[in-house]
This record gives sequence, C-alpha cells and structure tokens, in this order.
Amino acid sequence: MDARHAILFEPVRIGPKTLPNRFYQVPHASGFGSGKPRTQAAFRAVKAEGGWGGVCVEYAPVSPDSDDLPAISAEIWDDLDARALGLAAEAIHAHGSLAGLELYHGGASCPNGNSRAVRLAPSQITSGVQWAGLAKEMDTTDIARIQRDWVQAARRARDVGFDIVYVYGAHGYLMTQFLSAHANRRADGYGGSLANRGRFWLETLAAVRDAIGGDCAIATRIAVHGDSGVPGAEGLPGIHLDDMLTLVKMADDLVDLWDVTVGSWPEDSGTSRYFPEGHERRWAHQVREATAKPVVAVGRYSSPDLMAEVIRSGAVDLIGSARQAIADPFLPRKIAEGRLDEIRECTGSNVCILREEAFNHIGCVQNATAGEEYRRGWHPESFRAAADPNRPVLIVGAGPAGTECAVVLGKRGFTAVHLVEAEPEIGGRLRWARQLPTLGDWGRIIDWRAVQLARHIPVWR
Amino acid sequence: MDARHAILFEPVRIGPKTLPNRFYQVPHASGFGSGKPRTQAAFRAVKAEGGWGGVCVEYAPVSPDSDDLPAISAEIWDDLDARALGLAAEAIHAHGSLAGLELYHGGASCPNGNSRAVRLAPSQITSGVQWAGLAKEMDTTDIARIQRDWVQAARRARDVGFDIVYVYGAHGYLMTQFLSAHANRRADGYGGSLANRGRFWLETLAAVRDAIGGDCAIATRIAVHGDSGVPGAEGLPGIHLDDMLTLVKMADDLVDLWDVTVGSWPEDSGTSRYFPEGHERRWAHQVREATAKPVVAVGRYSSPDLMAEVIRSGAVDLIGSARQAIADPFLPRKIAEGRLDEIRECTGSNVCILREEAFNHIGCVQNATAGEEYRRGWHPESFRAAADPNRPVLIVGAGPAGTECAVVLGKRGFTAVHLVEAEPEIGGRLRWARQLPTLGDWGRIIDWRAVQLARHIPVWR
Repeated sequence: MDARHAILFEPVRIGPKTLPNRFYQVPHASGFGSGKPRTQAAFRAVKAEGGWGGVCVEYAPVSPDSDDLPAISAEIWDDLDARALGLAAEAIHAHGSLAGLELYHGGASCPNGNSRAVRLAPSQITSGVQWAGLAKEMDTTDIARIQRDWVQAARRARDVGFDIVYVYGAHGYLMTQFLSAHANRRADGYGGSLANRGRFWLETLAAVRDAIGGDCAIATRIAVHGDSGVPGAEGLPGIHLDDMLTLVKMADDLVDLWDVTVGSWPEDSGTSRYFPEGHERRWAHQVREATAKPVVAVGRYSSPDLMAEVIRSGAVDLIGSARQAIADPFLPRKIAEGRLDEIRECTGSNVCILREEAFNHIGCVQNATAGEEYRRGWHPESFRAAADPNRPVLIVGAGPAGTECAVVLGKRGFTAVHLVEAEPEIGGRLRWARQLPTLGDWGRIIDWRAVQLARHIPVWR
Repeated sequence: MDARHAILFEPVRIGPKTLPNRFYQVPHASGFGSGKPRTQAAFRAVKAEGGWGGVCVEYAPVSPDSDDLPAISAEIWDDLDARALGLAAEAIHAHGSLAGLELYHGGASCPNGNSRAVRLAPSQITSGVQWAGLAKEMDTTDIARIQRDWVQAARRARDVGFDIVYVYGAHGYLMTQFLSAHANRRADGYGGSLANRGRFWLETLAAVRDAIGGDCAIATRIAVHGDSGVPGAEGLPGIHLDDMLTLVKMADDLVDLWDVTVGSWPEDSGTSRYFPEGHERRWAHQVREATAKPVVAVGRYSSPDLMAEVIRSGAVDLIGSARQAIADPFLPRKIAEGRLDEIRECTGSNVCILREEAFNHIGCVQNATAGEEYRRGWHPESFRAAADPNRPVLIVGAGPAGTECAVVLGKRGFTAVHLVEAEPEIGGRLRWARQLPTLGDWGRIIDWRAVQLARHIPVWR
C-alpha cells in the first residue's frame, strides 16, 4: 500500500461499535428488499469481502403506511422480514465488516400499493411523486404510533445482528417533511419553529437510542439544501444549511454517525454529466464542524489520493459510497494492495439507478456481476477457469460489450481470444461520446477495459 | 327476469366446454398475479358468484423471457405457479362458472426486471414501452422453445383445472409482433407474406390444441386495427381488418372462442371520455361473420336491453366485460332477478387501470370492495350487520365518499345516519364534472348512490 493511503484504513469508533476502516457503503436501493433475502445478502457481502468496513442495506420501511409497492424495499414490519434481512447482516459480518440498516418512513411520498394505507404527513400535502391522493395530517396518535413502529423495527434490526441503525431524515421523506417549513404547516408542538419542526425527528432518535443505543450505533441521514435547489421527486430539496447546523447541534448527543446528503435525489445521486466527484464536500465539511461525532458523505470518489486528501482536510471521517461501491466492490482491497490500476471507476452514468427504478433489479455498466452474486454465482474478481482454454474465440467489435467479453475470457484462461474491430481504436460509440462536454467520465468504461485487455489478452487486432 | 333478457342466459358451447350463460369476464390485470393467489382467487370468485358464466384470470407469461416485473403478472413458469393459479380456477368452479387463463408472451414489450432475460421478437425491434435495449431477433430455436413453453403452460393450466386456455395474440405482444408487417421484418418462413407472419400464431394454436384440445376450450385474443390508430404502449395498433379476417379463416379450425379486441390498450380499454359503450361492436361483428366459432368482445355494456340487442344482432355470442365486471360483479344476477336499479354502472374513468398500473393493486370508484375480497373479507353485496344500529352517525358532505359511506351504513342497518350537505344536491364536485362534454358517464357514481340512498337512508338533509 502507498503510505499516503494508510489514513483510509484507520478504524473509526461510532458509538458502541468500531468500523475497521473508513470505507463505508451508505444505504442504497437494489430492488432486492426483504423479498429476495439471499440476493440481498450476497450483493452486500461481496462489498464486505472487498474491504468496505461498513455495509448498509437499503431503506427499510418501519410501518405498512410506508409501503413501496410497486417498487421494492426492505420492509421490516414483522419478525419474518427481520429474519430475511438478518441474512445480509450475517453475510457482512463473515468478512469482518459492520452491517447497517436504514429505518425509514416515506410519509406523503409512499405509493402504498400493497397496503393501500392512507398516506401520512405532518400536514395535508400532496406528494411530488405519487398520483391520486393527499396525505392525511398526522395527529398525535399517528406520531406516537410511527415512533413505536420505529423502535420496534430498531429492536428487530438489533436482534438479527445489525450494528448500525438509522433514523432516516433525508431525501424528502417523512422526517424531512416534518423539518421543512414548506411541508410542515402544523400549529402544534410539531410545527412552527425550527425546534418544533425538529421534534418528531429528535423524539424518534431519542426513543431509538433508549431502546438499542447500548447495542447499536445510531446513524441519521440528513439532507442539506444544496446549490441546485432541484426538489427531486419528493418535492423537498433539503433543509437550508443554517437551520441544519442548528438541528445538528440539538441532536448531536443522540447520534453516533451523521450521514450527510445534499439536496434530494437528482443532486445527491447526480449524474457525472451535471455533478462532479465530491460536489457534496463543502456541505459535509460544515456539518462536521458543527458536530463532535463522525461524519460520512458520498462523493463518487474513485481516486485514493483524493479520498485521503478529503479525510485529511477534515471534510468527513468516512468515505461514503453507493455507486462506486457497486462499480468496484473490491476498491478498498485494491488500494490496500497497491493495485490501483485494477480499480473499476464509476462512470456516474446512473444506469444502476435506472435499472433499479425501472426494473427493480440493480445493474452496473462497469461491474456486470452486480446483482447476480447469488442467482448466477457471479463474482467481480473471480472467474471460473475455462474447461477448454485453447478453444479459439472470435469476438467481432471492440465496444464496451466486446472488450468486456474478451477481458472475462482472458481471466478465465482462454489463450486464443481474437477481438476484431474495424476502427483503429477500441471503444465503439463511447470513443465519440466521451469527448462530449461533461461526458468524460463515461470513458472510464473504455479505460478500464483497455488496461485489462493489455494484461489478459496480449495479442488482439 | 324481463323476458327480453332471457337470451343473455342461454348456455354457449365453446369446444369441449359449455358456458352456463353469455356473461364472460375477459382476461384483465389485477396486480395479484400468481404471487397473491388467494387475493386473486377471491377477486375472481366474486364474479362467478355474481353470475358471470366465464371468468378469466389475467395474462400469464409462459416463459421467463416474458417477465413483467416491476409490474405483476400471473407467471406460469413452474408447477408451483400453476398451483397458485389453480386456486382461482377452483374458486370460480365453486359457483358453477368456467375458468380461463390467458397464456401470453410479451416479446419486445417485456420489462424482464426479474429474469433480466434478453427480450425476444420476430425482428430486432425496440419496444414502445421499455427502456434500454433492443429485442433479439428470434431464431428458429427460440421459436420452437417458446412454443414448447406455451404447450407446457397449457398442460399445467389444464391440470390445475382451467377450462379455457388462451393463445394470446392481441395488444401488441409477441403474436401481434409476428402478425405485424411493421414489427416483423423476417425473410424466413415466419415473415413476409400474411401466411408466413401468421405461422407462429397458427403453429402455437395447433400445438396447444394437440396437447389439451380435448380437455379445454382454446381461445385466442386478436387485435383488429380500429379507427383511432393509437398504437398504445406496445407500438402496434392491431392488424387491419382485411388481413385479420383472412387470418381468422385460416385459424378457425384451431379455435373454440374468438376474443376480439380493437386497437391497442388506449382504444380497447378507452376511457368513457373518448370511447362510447360498444365502440368495438362493428369490428367484432365482422369477425363473427368470418368464423363458425363463438365470438366475445367487450363494450363496457351496463344496459341489459343493449346487451340483449347486441346478441340478437349477431355482433357477438358473449358479452365480454372487464371494467363493468369490476364495477358490478353481480350484474348478471341482478338482471336475472330483475333488480336493474341495483346495477352499479361502470363510469369508464379507468381508475381501475390507474390503480393496477401505478400501484399493482386494482380498485374501483363504483365498487369499493374490488380487490379487498380476500384480505379484508369485503363483499360487494353483503355487509356486516351493525352491532349498535341505533348509534347516530353524522356524515359531513354528500360527495361520492359521503354518500357511499351513508349507503354502506344503511345496508349495515344503522337507523340514524345523518348526511349533511351545504349544497341543495348530492354529488360534490361530480355535480359539475358530469356536465362537461363527454364526462356524462362519471355521473353514474352519483346516480347509483342516489338510488341507494333513497332506499337505505330514508331521511337525510
């Protein structure tokens, strides 16, 4: 390992737990939820195997009135759900990493296709994302019940082995709806002043801490209003920084890990076309200065030099990752072993999100094995040796698919792979696309394959 | 029963089976698929109980490369799927009706979110409805394999008790893709001439008939190009009538029941705003003149006089229904018993389709019990007697919800229901909406409740 990167491998204490290093896969959707538990477990476990010290599952609704159908989420409504999700915790632990679960309620944003429950929100608001129906203004009975659901879900999460349990307050969902003066028009103790708007979130944090604080680290995810102001599907672009810093100070005793996001989905998970690596950095940095607890933020970082510099600068304590951890589950281990040219860099094309949202099954243009670890037994770094390695193979076209095919065959030990291409360079249509303004990161698809080709397919034409 | 309606209650022979009457619930989606088998069974059974002589489930993909996720369909890929669907057949039989299953392959239109299988189509076409990816042109191995899948699915359908098995050829899916000169650009025996384009469909019909023809009625659903030419999500608005009539004659020996649709979804299931009752009639009539077999077509018919006239005219043999059978599962029985004022007429607002497509769970503005027969034990015609019938109830507002509430309370035996309304008439915003051009049918929501109110809530103000 390069000594400059050693800082990335320092352990970090979060509440009663210790992360083995600073690589942290933040919660993100996969399409597997609690309904495909072995697919979920294998998808997360490969990241732990690859060296991510903390690995989270996706958001987990605590109540049936936060039901995601027709999308898939990790419901934790009963013990059977919890057992299903526990497989992921177990699989993550097998590699020495900590497992996190993001407990969640979507409020006005829930489709509730399965439960057909009435949507709930701090006030009678419409959803930015769902058709057909206003949310009901929550009365104090509703508030107390959802807080009980949250505590019960937290106990279940702890009981099946999760180390980190979230009180999810970002991305325009129920907690953000309470925090937002736009969505929260209540006149009671849960609306009006910032302290009142924060009450639901603070009470829930306190209740979860009371229930499981000695056993698990309590994380919370917050959304700071960013530069773009793009509201996202939920209609709420985050809480303005000054207010957020006040809230951070109010909640700091209740929190073991701050997971800072910027804006709503279109900004937080922004494509490389519009958002450069690390665009969240200055917001996270300001939150970190307001708290005594560790901070994680994503940045689609793929450069270990930059990651180390971000840590040294004091912007964050942990390198958060969703997309880069999909593209290369083995990134931490490759850094630890000095194999930097092996890193599959995320392109920020957001095909992962498209696949997850449109088809309920995640995928990745850089890592073809993503999401197929269980069902097909695919692994991003190990490939079955060829039974007949001397059988010649002809591949016509050296675009992304042709080059990937050649690389995999090379790794499997095929000795006579003939990759033919009419153009003088590999890359197919990406040779052109990567030259367009702001699409340079798409070229990583080709760069990675070019390095691999040179290593595994010595002769091609 | 009015003697004019007796014709609707004549039995109709279809292949080896006999429908007890002319009321036929055609296949339509519910969101229940094979994954919620008891919900599916109860939703269909209530229609059989209400007198529909034939009751079908929704489309049932025969192969994993026709996988509907993130939508839900009635996969019949293995014996466990078939057993799940068999519960519906059993529940339908319990009321003396015949059960139908619509075997299906979507071709280029399949999301394949679960299977991630490559889409297949007669030619390398794009889908009108799916993102990300061309379909692969099927080779003869693919064609033979899908036909084997179809036959295997047909055997499974028969073995779990279905009486009517479809070879689904409408709505822009795989068979229509073969039939269409636009989508089918093949140069082999499955493309080019009309006979060649029909080969896949005809071969599949023959193979299914060989396998189960003695045991089950073989139905096929076809799409005739209508007036609108709206292509629908699948990009294919149906086959022009002249070609379709030629195909009908070619296939007539292989078919026991012709299920005629017009155009693709936006026309076939058109809203009342754009399509009047019975707009499919003249197309169905022409198909009926070309065949020796019974014909069914939908028409969102709610008037028994019109239904009887449509039968007498020779346009169809069976009154097909999807939306009207959702709005009133007991329509046939009400006609048989002369209770015409009890019929809940479909509004054609297509909220059923919205609920099914957006939330994977069907619902209805006229029949609040639709889709909740199993989970909540709701029934469109029977209501639990009030435990405390003399308890007074105040309902504020006599719009659709307030009037529905009053009617249900009345049917439950509450004697002191006070429905108050500021306006001189009931109906809420629908009083205005129903007066808009082409939205008259929406007023059925109010008309039905007005009749019921008068019967069950004698005094209200």
